[in-house]
Amino acid sequence: LHEENLHEFRRHYLEHHPYDQARLFILLSAKEREMLYQYLSPGEMAEIFENIEEEEHPYETYLAEMNPSFAADMFAEMYTDDAVDVLNELDKAQAASYLSLMNKKAASEIRELLHYEESTAGSIMTTEFITISAQQNVGAAMEILKAEAPDAETIYYIYVTDGDKKLAGVVSLRDLIISSDHTLISDIMNERVYSVSVADDQEDVARRMRDYNFLALPVVDFQQHILGIITVDDIVDVIDEEASEDYSRLAAVPDVDTADRGPFSAAKKRLPWLIILLFLGMLTASLIGRFEATLEQVAILAVFIPLIAGMAGNTGTQALAVAVRRIALGDTTEEKKSKILLKEAGTGLITGTICGIVVTITVFIWHGQIFLGLLVGISIFATLTVATVAGAFIPLLMHKFNIDPAVASGPFITTINDIISVLIYFGMATMFMQYLL
Amino acid sequence: LHEENLHEFRRHYLEHHPYDQARLFILLSAKEREMLYQYLSPGEMAEIFENIEEEEHPYETYLAEMNPSFAADMFAEMYTDDAVDVLNELDKAQAASYLSLMNKKAASEIRELLHYEESTAGSIMTTEFITISAQQNVGAAMEILKAEAPDAETIYYIYVTDGDKKLAGVVSLRDLIISSDHTLISDIMNERVYSVSVADDQEDVARRMRDYNFLALPVVDFQQHILGIITVDDIVDVIDEEASEDYSRLAAVPDVDTADRGPFSAAKKRLPWLIILLFLGMLTASLIGRFEATLEQVAILAVFIPLIAGMAGNTGTQALAVAVRRIALGDTTEEKKSKILLKEAGTGLITGTICGIVVTITVFIWHGQIFLGLLVGISIFATLTVATVAGAFIPLLMHKFNIDPAVASGPFITTINDIISVLIYFGMATMFMQYLL
Repeated sequence: LHEENLHEFRRHYLEHHPYDQARLFILLSAKEREMLYQYLSPGEMAEIFENIEEEEHPYETYLAEMNPSFAADMFAEMYTDDAVDVLNELDKAQAASYLSLMNKKAASEIRELLHYEESTAGSIMTTEFITISAQQNVGAAMEILKAEAPDAETIYYIYVTDGDKKLAGVVSLRDLIISSDHTLISDIMNERVYSVSVADDQEDVARRMRDYNFLALPVVDFQQHILGIITVDDIVDVIDEEASEDYSRLAAVPDVDTADRGPFSAAKKRLPWLIILLFLGMLTASLIGRFEATLEQVAILAVFIPLIAGMAGNTGTQALAVAVRRIALGDTTEEKKSKILLKEAGTGLITGTICGIVVTITVFIWHGQIFLGLLVGISIFATLTVATVAGAFIPLLMHKFNIDPAVASGPFITTINDIISVLIYFGMATMFMQYLL
Repeated sequence: LHEENLHEFRRHYLEHHPYDQARLFILLSAKEREMLYQYLSPGEMAEIFENIEEEEHPYETYLAEMNPSFAADMFAEMYTDDAVDVLNELDKAQAASYLSLMNKKAASEIRELLHYEESTAGSIMTTEFITISAQQNVGAAMEILKAEAPDAETIYYIYVTDGDKKLAGVVSLRDLIISSDHTLISDIMNERVYSVSVADDQEDVARRMRDYNFLALPVVDFQQHILGIITVDDIVDVIDEEASEDYSRLAAVPDVDTADRGPFSAAKKRLPWLIILLFLGMLTASLIGRFEATLEQVAILAVFIPLIAGMAGNTGTQALAVAVRRIALGDTTEEKKSKILLKEAGTGLITGTICGIVVTITVFIWHGQIFLGLLVGISIFATLTVATVAGAFIPLLMHKFNIDPAVASGPFITTINDIISVLIYFGMATMFMQYLL
């Protein structure tokens, strides 16, 4: 690059896969990048840009370095869905100014996709798909394919439309290849074509694509007009994204995968949850405060608070994780929900009984007080049973009220179960005080 | 089905996508399934079987109902990777007996794949791929393609081998279609072909496929001989599987996605972790026991135990989740690890300071004791700082010793942080006792 040997450099650099080109690109200095913008065409730069993630490197830095009309041309050359992803990260005025510099057709395609709500099929679809008519024959279809292959995102499925541009069927390239040139498309097309609606949730689209092993799915409006396609590589990203979202929420971190730019931004993200949990913790503290008289008489009771509260938190987190996944996998009918709750109640009873017996024996051996052992043991039994059910019940209830159950994070459930466990433990201790003194 | 109208039924049923056929199949009664085995060919049954998951419905039930030679033919017709998946779930003697009933070629291909270790590229690859020689022309390649299309798992990448059967390049069907029949493969093939080794971890393969947006990747031995291919639909399953593994571990549930057959099997799976955590909790209890004298003098100290231990657990879980994901994403150099730790230390200091101040003020207002407020506030500050660092340090340490950091589940870190927080809190309380009395 530095030797300014343009041809040699272009040949070497462009030989790499666009993903590797992008990895190299982000390692360059600002000065080197500016040289690169001179050397490459907007189309070549577009391929690189498609392989950069906003989380790793803010797009704005790079866009600010480019000549605005070069950037606009680059957006026009990108697959529409990728261009939309980048433009969505910019502020509206900036995105609009790039759109105004673009050729009309590309700009209007991008503008349409910008309207769709986040996480819907519309927001991840692209418009570079191939359609043919059912009356054409295989030879004609192959000609269309050859002409459109350089621009289309996938050429492996070709969608068949009727006179009204409505989706009527699908042919795979596999079908075209094994048929003779004179066969009519209508004779080989599959009329049972699976499609998704623009407003469908991306998670549902991902699930369907995974179950059916499709490489692409057409996206239609409510009148069955084809608007775009979603390809499997986008779905891989969606699955990744949704999984890390669930993971983040279980741990009560807003977004585990965004590279934090430093401790301040990380602290800023985590503090809201921590402050909420802090006040829930204060509530627990004030509940124990009501049992101060009990505590002053039998100080040893305090020794087992973390054990009981901790076990309630652990079993609650387990039940929570199972319930959240079951909901994500689609077990959302009332019948299935009752089944989950019943099963968790059973599981809580069994684990509670066993842990309760273990604790009773251990405390008895350790302190030699059978009543203390029984108190702690029975508390563990009751706490585990209730906490297990609560761990499953809270996300199921949230789902019923259309709150994403994944926001019921592990720490939240743990804190709720702290409260439950403290009430059970001190309630029992106060009741059976005479045996402990 | 019941009307025994064979042709009508076959036509209706087979018109559906194999995934839907499988969904219907599992709803049938044993008697209906037995009729179905009569009506369908082993090849048709194979497509259905490829779409059934062991976790939902044990394969054995269905296999036991089939005539063994029908089952063997079905395995021979399945894609090798899918057949291997099913056979791996059976016991060895049973798998061997099916293999002995199969034709030699299919049996030997399956046997080879059965040898690869779980979670490696070898264990998920399939052998239905298409190779051509670099000296052939596009027309000849298309002929091969047409002949092999019905059996191959993907026809969208064709791998080019040299005389020794070594991988030399790749051509996509897209390249073939836009080239004239007389072009030599060697002129259009891409020599920069990406491949993975049989022993590579499936997670690495998935990451690479996602980054490069490939639809398939060839699998080679150490001499670059092509052994199989991995297609994107298998990778979608791998990503799903690995994500739910991380999720399960964060919650300390062995496997969140396996449908538990009842509360007993669920309890059996969760109890080992709960018992370990129970004894760790006992350790916490015995530590507090050492401060019984302090507790007897100032019973109100007990009130804040769950608050402090809980906050330590919460912040530790957040730091843990971030560290585990960073490791999973490949931030594993010593330098990056130190950076993660430093950042978490900074985050812990900031969140600790803010939560500490909030707690001090709240406790002061509530109890009117400034020393108690300061004690709890400073404990929260110290605990949060240490717990955040511990939450990141423990998984990083585990990774250093080649233990999967994901086993450091949320409940485990929470319990470790309970111990740390109790030591800090009671240590400080004992030291500054005179101000509290």
